[in-house]
Amino acid sequence: MRPPERAAAAPDPAFRLPVRVYYQDTDAGGVVFHATYLAFLERARTEWLRRLGFDIARMARADRVLFIVREVRVTYVRPALLDDLLQVTVAVQHLGRAQFTLRQQVLRDAELLADASVNLACVSSDALRPLRLPDALCDAVAAARSPAPS
Amino acid sequence: MRPPERAAAAPDPAFRLPVRVYYQDTDAGGVVFHATYLAFLERARTEWLRRLGFDIARMARADRVLFIVREVRVTYVRPALLDDLLQVTVAVQHLGRAQFTLRQQVLRDAELLADASVNLACVSSDALRPLRLPDALCDAVAAARSPAPS
Amino acid sequence: MRPPERAAAAPDPAFRLPVRVYYQDTDAGGVVFHATYLAFLERARTEWLRRLGFDIARMARADRVLFIVREVRVTYVRPALLDDLLQVTVAVQHLGRAQFTLRQQVLRDAELLADASVNLACVSSDALRPLRLPDALCDAVAAARSPAPS
Amino acid sequence: MRPPERAAAAPDPAFRLPVRVYYQDTDAGGVVFHATYLAFLERARTEWLRRLGFDIARMARADRVLFIVREVRVTYVRPALLDDLLQVTVAVQHLGRAQFTLRQQVLRDAELLADASVNLACVSSDALRPLRLPDALCDAVAAARSPAPS
Repeated sequence: MRPPERAAAAPDPAFRLPVRVYYQDTDAGGVVFHATYLAFLERARTEWLRRLGFDIARMARADRVLFIVREVRVTYVRPALLDDLLQVTVAVQHLGRAQFTLRQQVLRDAELLADASVNLACVSSDALRPLRLPDALCDAVAAARSPAPS
Repeated sequence: MRPPERAAAAPDPAFRLPVRVYYQDTDAGGVVFHATYLAFLERARTEWLRRLGFDIARMARADRVLFIVREVRVTYVRPALLDDLLQVTVAVQHLGRAQFTLRQQVLRDAELLADASVNLACVSSDALRPLRLPDALCDAVAAARSPAPS
Repeated sequence: MRPPERAAAAPDPAFRLPVRVYYQDTDAGGVVFHATYLAFLERARTEWLRRLGFDIARMARADRVLFIVREVRVTYVRPALLDDLLQVTVAVQHLGRAQFTLRQQVLRDAELLADASVNLACVSSDALRPLRLPDALCDAVAAARSPAPS
Repeated sequence: MRPPERAAAAPDPAFRLPVRVYYQDTDAGGVVFHATYLAFLERARTEWLRRLGFDIARMARADRVLFIVREVRVTYVRPALLDDLLQVTVAVQHLGRAQFTLRQQVLRDAELLADASVNLACVSSDALRPLRLPDALCDAVAAARSPAPS
């Protein structure tokens, strides 16, 4: 019931990872190859999960749990170029019991280059069977989604 | 006005490119990395354009025209695995004056692994300015979309 | 003792895999990115092993054996370009008990673009411990190396 | 003539770039894909050049000069794993008039994972003709190679 305060308390709750563009990320069109953006998004998601307390390598080894991408949508607004220093954001768009959706953007300074929505789920690392999201993850993602009113 | 015949004449108008999965395409989850599907889709689109008579390298050099991806949506249905022999399809979903949308699927035999929609446009290769689609391309894409009644 | 006949029987024993260059393989320099050649070499090695009767996915799953690259040397002679249709060769350079070395080249028609030497070994797929080469592999590689006199 | 002082003044002259390993860098063997190391090496070289005052994107646009890899040798000692935080080093091994060679290593803490030698040259960005190294680059590389005695 206190959206103004909440908005004021968290004007930009999104996580940001800086990503530099190298030749390996570009193509002969002189711009970042469109599939490379998905790699940039994955790096940012991984660091965002780490900040929430989730280490995906430990989850894979100890808990036998993998995150898989179920759906991705990317709108390419402007091309990223060689040597650009990008910011890749992560924000929670939807949280279900067995899957969640992140909104991710690729920015160059204040300029939006790509706008993405990524739906993720958890599966067992051996048989790739769908699993419910771990409770601790749901709690952390829910907390990341709705910053507590100050 | 003869949809049955047309359907009979073209029960499967989609273009298919076989793509083999190598270690380079997989990740430590034991499956094909989700961004790699976009690379598979690009290979199939390029070969589909070649079959329509459009050589993207010649277009870039001689006509100074590049295709760019404006939007991509991929639904991942089942994971592709190391050494799978995939089929990647291309079919025209929408054709505009300055952009067109392809439906592309990744199949293993009859099993759907990924279902994608890719919106493309043409830009000048130097300044990356939007261009109308070349008339010849529109004609070829329209023909690929609606096979002439027999 | 019959080298002339042998040479006549096998003037070019090398395995060749055709590889098309797409945007995904290039960089903003307008040429194929130098690390991409290693991916091309891996594709050719995998198909060469398949022709010898070795399916690397089955070996990983059933035999718990992986091939690993221990050393790679690549000399880049001329750049490969977008849409080039390359030929990637495989020939046995050295065969030991626990490792073997392949000579691999990337060609555009008769023009040498890259010349590589790749040393490989086998490891267990779980603990990545070094293993002796499977006898069947040694036999097949040795046979590939020295075609039997006709 | 003062090696002890020089050694004391520069016990570790190598440049180091931290690189995190993500799923995108790994393969179904559970380790970093061997070609990915070349991408890690390129990132470190680019940041090393930047520290020396050379911005490769500006060089490509303003000076029409590209760096190309002429030869690469990599010895893979131990596998890098998902989520590892690696250090990638750069040190000058040889400096010629038209080419130079860097020694680059990939480390996990003090453990050597890969040891590489990369020979680079400059070419014109349009016709890819060989060029002498820019004087400023030679001076900077020479300085990076031999730290001035204190």
